[in-house]
Amino acid sequence: MSDTVVVGLDVGGTSTRAVALALTGERLGTGRAGGGNPTSHGAERAADELRAALRGALSGVDPDRVRAGTIGLAGAGRLLADPAGRAAFDRAWRDAGLRCPYAVHGDALVAYASGTAGPHGTVLIAGTGAIAAQVRDLRLDRVADGHGWLLGDAGSGFWLGREAVRRLLADLDAARAPGPLGRRVLVELLGDDRVAPRPRDTVDALIQAVTRRPPVELARLAPLVVSAAAEAEPVAAALIAEAAVLLADGAARIRPAGDGDPVVLGGGLLTGGTPLAAAVRAELARRWPDAPLRTAGDGAAAAAWLAARDLPEVTDPAALHALLVPPPTRPGGAT
Amino acid sequence: MSDTVVVGLDVGGTSTRAVALALTGERLGTGRAGGGNPTSHGAERAADELRAALRGALSGVDPDRVRAGTIGLAGAGRLLADPAGRAAFDRAWRDAGLRCPYAVHGDALVAYASGTAGPHGTVLIAGTGAIAAQVRDLRLDRVADGHGWLLGDAGSGFWLGREAVRRLLADLDAARAPGPLGRRVLVELLGDDRVAPRPRDTVDALIQAVTRRPPVELARLAPLVVSAAAEAEPVAAALIAEAAVLLADGAARIRPAGDGDPVVLGGGLLTGGTPLAAAVRAELARRWPDAPLRTAGDGAAAAAWLAARDLPEVTDPAALHALLVPPPTRPGGAT
Repeated sequence: MSDTVVVGLDVGGTSTRAVALALTGERLGTGRAGGGNPTSHGAERAADELRAALRGALSGVDPDRVRAGTIGLAGAGRLLADPAGRAAFDRAWRDAGLRCPYAVHGDALVAYASGTAGPHGTVLIAGTGAIAAQVRDLRLDRVADGHGWLLGDAGSGFWLGREAVRRLLADLDAARAPGPLGRRVLVELLGDDRVAPRPRDTVDALIQAVTRRPPVELARLAPLVVSAAAEAEPVAAALIAEAAVLLADGAARIRPAGDGDPVVLGGGLLTGGTPLAAAVRAELARRWPDAPLRTAGDGAAAAAWLAARDLPEVTDPAALHALLVPPPTRPGGAT
Repeated sequence: MSDTVVVGLDVGGTSTRAVALALTGERLGTGRAGGGNPTSHGAERAADELRAALRGALSGVDPDRVRAGTIGLAGAGRLLADPAGRAAFDRAWRDAGLRCPYAVHGDALVAYASGTAGPHGTVLIAGTGAIAAQVRDLRLDRVADGHGWLLGDAGSGFWLGREAVRRLLADLDAARAPGPLGRRVLVELLGDDRVAPRPRDTVDALIQAVTRRPPVELARLAPLVVSAAAEAEPVAAALIAEAAVLLADGAARIRPAGDGDPVVLGGGLLTGGTPLAAAVRAELARRWPDAPLRTAGDGAAAAAWLAARDLPEVTDPAALHALLVPPPTRPGGAT
């Protein structure tokens, strides 16, 4: 058993991370490469990033010791349904010298497993978008939201950014002076926080500034809302409270009332001790008082654990989780 | 005075309508042409439609009798700021044999004037989009919403269509059987109302069906909501009630509390006796109990009245309004 190595990969839109772990928990190597989401980047490009990250993680490891591997990525289902994409991933795996099989799981399952070893529970993710998923026997079961910015992603970074602009536009319509959050949105979108003598001119300029970019870039305003809420700016605080309710509503579509299984919070807006994370925790604790609330941590390590737990020599997967998957270390991200 | 003729035009995105009226109220001619919005169609194309509609209206009229004219159109401000567009409109006007000056006003002012002769009041329009405007001395003053589908248009046809899809997606997420409105949306978007064995497959198919068209086409689902609400379908009825509050909220951004000036309802969703029109009337009556509520009628005639009222021989503009602008005749659209 001490000779066995497992490999985990967390393939995201902006980075690909790989880790090689001994079953003792020893980190034998890590690798990092560019974004490798096959849906947005194409399977060949994603496979290239996978190859680069794997080579980094395996640079000091005999690949014959690697007995299992897992790749977590958004759009896993689409990759598995695409023979050419699957073949590109197979080639990258072999190019790294690996001969063991590997599994592909959705990024939501990997985020869940990075926060808990419990086989059943819920993962709630808010970043640019928002999605909740039930996990049964460490497999993704039902999913809520993740419907994209046009139809869903309620409470996400996109939602926060769009609502921040909408509140500003309402102030300008009503000839109210924008508050601190509104002024920050003005600076971000128009370069300064002055309102034109005819406020409608500022309204038109804001609409043009937003509509000349892809809509999803409204999520770039979310950090303004988060930081303003941390300073108790009232509009921002109200938006954060509303987003927390919407995110919990998403989880409630799939999670039974009174459920005591863990909830793992993931995504940039729910890790790192943001005001939204605190508000979501409070809202979840109100609705599911018996549920342990966890924060997502190291996705690559979680993927490696998912690979390891099916090996015959692993008899206590929960104990192995404690060895392989470090708790989140970001400020406020404690479990 | 009996020899004087005025011309009015209502230039919309789907049709251009012109009317030539004697000051006695006699309709001397009408003309109709294709959509002529200079913002969406280009000024030259808009001027061509203007020319065609004018020729129809003036076919039996000596153009030297025409003493004044008004063109109402969406994006009037942009036309007036564009010398080439203005020149194209000037040419169309002269090509029709007209030598009098003409004014250009926004379609919101013309909609307002089609419902009342009162110089001050509010116009609230809901069609594909939604906008409210204050009118002072028969000129557009402050405006609320009209921010477009990405950032605004709360309570509009776009909003109703999007929310209908969102409620359906929420039902599918929660493994609830879609209700009557949801089933109609399924038929409209996917061809039949069956839900896949994995409801997430139906969710994905709905998202794809929506996102492969321009977002604004979600407004095409609004008639489903309106007709379902007329049959008391509960989800549709709730959406109509919510839309009515949002539309009244828009008006409240610009209209003083307790104001007793008239409110004119315009746009396809607020004329013609729809459930949304009834709900908006109830909401407005609750907030502004002293305000007369009117329905927009014949925009071309209202434009002609706006042109006529500045003529020296017109001493009683309100009496002239009664002569020139027929009350709305669509079912339920009574003032």
